[in-house]
Amino acid sequence: MAQTNESRQKLREICRIAARVFYEKGYDGASMQDIAEAVGLTKAGLYHHVGSKDRLLFEIMNYGMDILDETVLQKVKDIADPREKLRRTITGHIDLIVRARDQEITVILHENRSLKGALRKKINLRKRQYIDYLEGLIRQVQQESGQPAGSPRIAAFALLGMVNWLYQWFDPEGPIKQNDLAEGYVNFFLRGLLGTP
Amino acid sequence: MAQTNESRQKLREICRIAARVFYEKGYDGASMQDIAEAVGLTKAGLYHHVGSKDRLLFEIMNYGMDILDETVLQKVKDIADPREKLRRTITGHIDLIVRARDQEITVILHENRSLKGALRKKINLRKRQYIDYLEGLIRQVQQESGQPAGSPRIAAFALLGMVNWLYQWFDPEGPIKQNDLAEGYVNFFLRGLLGTP
Repeated sequence: MAQTNESRQKLREICRIAARVFYEKGYDGASMQDIAEAVGLTKAGLYHHVGSKDRLLFEIMNYGMDILDETVLQKVKDIADPREKLRRTITGHIDLIVRARDQEITVILHENRSLKGALRKKINLRKRQYIDYLEGLIRQVQQESGQPAGSPRIAAFALLGMVNWLYQWFDPEGPIKQNDLAEGYVNFFLRGLLGTP
Repeated sequence: MAQTNESRQKLREICRIAARVFYEKGYDGASMQDIAEAVGLTKAGLYHHVGSKDRLLFEIMNYGMDILDETVLQKVKDIADPREKLRRTITGHIDLIVRARDQEITVILHENRSLKGALRKKINLRKRQYIDYLEGLIRQVQQESGQPAGSPRIAAFALLGMVNWLYQWFDPEGPIKQNDLAEGYVNFFLRGLLGTP
């Protein structure tokens, strides 16, 4: 669907606010009226922008994947060394999960049992592409090191779990600093991958 | 609160069914009427057993921690070798997450932003105790090996992420078998911890 930059910005603003409402009330608990009020639109105005509640959830998730793309993947795409590229991907993804600004969006992104049918398939395809990217990068790191140790696919999922789970427990104001966390995670992951620090 | 064995079994049955309803409709989307119908009680009968919707959510989460205790921790408590104890804890926790029977309960266990106040504190305390147990065990494994590598606390959270995230992607009917997954996770984790396979 062709979008002007302005309508895209408006949609993103709606997504950010709606994600917060879904986060607080749950997808089923939040009504389109609740969301319209939070955004400052009439209900008709909200429907005009997003089509349906289903579609709104999809747009939030799609926006979540866009953010991953724009703030992590685009920034590492020209790095040639696989190990450095993996390191920067991990620290970038951690940064995305722990910073407060978009946290509701990244949480909603993983509550995809509320999304059904074709929209769910589309989001799962984008997630799958990210997993494939990680798996390919992990395989390269293993091959370069000459120490392939274990399945790169299982390692890719282990990494996603380590990082995506952070929102459950990591407090940037707590005793562990984000830099130490990121360095600890990268080192732990590379040792797990290669058997050497 | 003193409970007869019979009332405890009844409460657990209610928890299992209610967890499924919360899982499907979300905590805010599911009414006590929905749950009463699913359980086969009147609404008054349901309130008699669980007190309130809040309390019901707490009981489900508490039951989730009981299951972890009974099916994982009790079984490893007499193992003296820390590495073997850690290995058995990891494979036991994986088994808990991937088996279908209690999956809704373990998922609900982590949706604790719906729980408030004192009940939330109680559940968080039980979760904290499990993290402390993992951290202590990891520290022992590192000390025994003479290769302490990285913070045991960060490693404990990394492990929880790897394992708890499984419900998002692991399909026991899919291409990766549970035994291979468990073995891959244990090896990956020990290498990450110690820098040796």
